[in-house]
Amino acid sequence: MSFWDKILGKAPQSEKDHLFNDAITSIVGTKPKNLDLFKLATLHSSIGKVSKAGFRESNERLEFLGDATLSMVVAEYLFKKYPFEEEGFLTEIRSRIVKRETLNRLAYKLGIPSLVELQDKNQTKRGNSIYGNALEAVIGAVFLDRGYSFCKKFILEKIVDQHLDIQQIIHTDTNFKSKIIEWAQKENKEVVFESMTQTNTLAHNEFMITLLIDEQQVSKGIGTSKKRAEQNAALKACEKLKLL
Amino acid sequence: MSFWDKILGKAPQSEKDHLFNDAITSIVGTKPKNLDLFKLATLHSSIGKVSKAGFRESNERLEFLGDATLSMVVAEYLFKKYPFEEEGFLTEIRSRIVKRETLNRLAYKLGIPSLVELQDKNQTKRGNSIYGNALEAVIGAVFLDRGYSFCKKFILEKIVDQHLDIQQIIHTDTNFKSKIIEWAQKENKEVVFESMTQTNTLAHNEFMITLLIDEQQVSKGIGTSKKRAEQNAALKACEKLKLL
Repeated sequence: MSFWDKILGKAPQSEKDHLFNDAITSIVGTKPKNLDLFKLATLHSSIGKVSKAGFRESNERLEFLGDATLSMVVAEYLFKKYPFEEEGFLTEIRSRIVKRETLNRLAYKLGIPSLVELQDKNQTKRGNSIYGNALEAVIGAVFLDRGYSFCKKFILEKIVDQHLDIQQIIHTDTNFKSKIIEWAQKENKEVVFESMTQTNTLAHNEFMITLLIDEQQVSKGIGTSKKRAEQNAALKACEKLKLL
Repeated sequence: MSFWDKILGKAPQSEKDHLFNDAITSIVGTKPKNLDLFKLATLHSSIGKVSKAGFRESNERLEFLGDATLSMVVAEYLFKKYPFEEEGFLTEIRSRIVKRETLNRLAYKLGIPSLVELQDKNQTKRGNSIYGNALEAVIGAVFLDRGYSFCKKFILEKIVDQHLDIQQIIHTDTNFKSKIIEWAQKENKEVVFESMTQTNTLAHNEFMITLLIDEQQVSKGIGTSKKRAEQNAALKACEKLKLL
């Protein structure tokens, strides 16, 4: 039994559609052209029927599309917002934005959970990503319904601006230096952050740090402060060691 | 010394720009609005100078943006081209298209390598992804120069249609069943593909296979043939076991 069948009982389909249409309009900010896309976006595979074409209906394909759209829009947003940050920073901050925990939290803020059709609400236990996935599927539906530019505007205005504190996301656990030191202690390795001063490739306000593990150079970081350079070197080392 | 300095010696900058402009126009299909974007896209970090803002110039940020754009465009392309394939299939085929080997090969087909500025051509030894990364950076430059729609057209017409054989990519090593059997032999585990016939969730032309490892159910696959259902079950198991 679908969520809408449950709350509306035997009410006619047109009435259910009307309420669902209102809910989607409120989330997206505009009336959907094709409501079926949004019905599919909120359909968990546990309840999807097999269609005549022999294809099980669920929001998983839309989730794939929405995930790609979200990643693209966030990439462009970060690229333009942080013109002087390196690629490693952009990758890291984007991965924090599109990770499961963030998407689940955003799904609740947007009111997605009450729209999702599932066989058993217990499936949404902690750690599960049903609602975050449904949010991605809704993004995919918006993309198909209205195109890339509209979907980008939806993501930036209705999700990023309203519900994400990018500064907080950046400053949460950015301590890559601690991360690498912690790892080294556990692995019984020696970490050294070496300040490089004898280099002519640096600008006057720049610092360079070389990170050595057991006397082997693992990465270099450049930054406008020694601390920043250390963090950049540690970030690169975390990437190499797959600690992120 | 940059590549263009090498081939043109002391020729005036305007002449180098002119030739570079022609090369980019030939790759992209339209004259670039902002040539500097493409100069940056072909600048490897080994040769990038530190700017006055204390920022090392290289194509890495553009590569980040281009990677996101390519993933997005390919996601939409596959989503629409294969309306009856599941998410796992779309994810797998996209990852084959955007993987390092494919991008390096495409970079050569598009004539990217001769444009890339590096300190030492030996850096491009086998296994390295300098040219594939430069291709992604060029895609990022096209996106910034002309916007999403143009960039999508560029990717589909100049890269996908001209240089990718999607059918061949799909049929290369799609044998997930062999993969899982091989893994099980190595790990000394028993794999069983069980045909489910007693299920009323299937359409008349559908098959369902349950994949069991050491008598534990790991995944289910649905398909319009038994073989297809097995492959789908095996693909899901490969995903779960991180064998892809």
